[in-house]
Amino acid sequence: IGTTISRRFPRLNYEIKLECDKVVDAIDVKDIERKKNGQLRTFCRCWKSKNWPYCDGAHKAHNKETGDNVGQLRILETSQEVKIS
Amino acid sequence: IGTTISRRFPRLNYEIKLECDKVVDAIDVKDIERKKNGQLRTFCRCWKSKNWPYCDGAHKAHNKETGDNVGQLRILETSQEVKIS
Ligand code: FES
Ligand code: FES
Repeated sequence: IGTTISRRFPRLNYEIKLECDKVVDAIDVKDIERKKNGQLRTFCRCWKSKNWPYCDGAHKAHNKETGDNVGQLRILETSQEVKIS
Repeated sequence: IGTTISRRFPRLNYEIKLECDKVVDAIDVKDIERKKNGQLRTFCRCWKSKNWPYCDGAHKAHNKETGDNVGQLRILETSQEVKIS
């Protein structure tokens, strides 16, 4: 893994699977359909979750500390009410 | 949106919906089920895609430039072969 940091755009990930050349996660849509709780439908995009690839709320501290505005990806059902929190 | 940059962990996003306090995307699982092409099942986590929230391959240049190892989230079907590229 290279360690070059570009000036304008730094690397994003300092924690998740650093031994991998590229962190790709594959989730079965049927598993998402089966799960009714929010956690297994909410995916981290801040690279700080302790429950990767799912969001554990760590984006809040990240955004506060860095002034960033990143947030999770939610997979939901049409009937489900969209609540952003 | 704050602009404080922490030393160790910089912000991740310099491009996507900078006018939002937090970028959360909600995708209907039924839409994922209906789509058979890869694009609408592959979600960006590098914050560089021009087709947000979907992956457009921009992570490759990002990883190369920064030495990062971030990659996409893929939603697939059990029957689908997993190919990492
Ligand atoms: S913990 Fe990473 S997006 Fe929520
Ligand atoms: S373009 Fe961002 S993860 Fe592929």
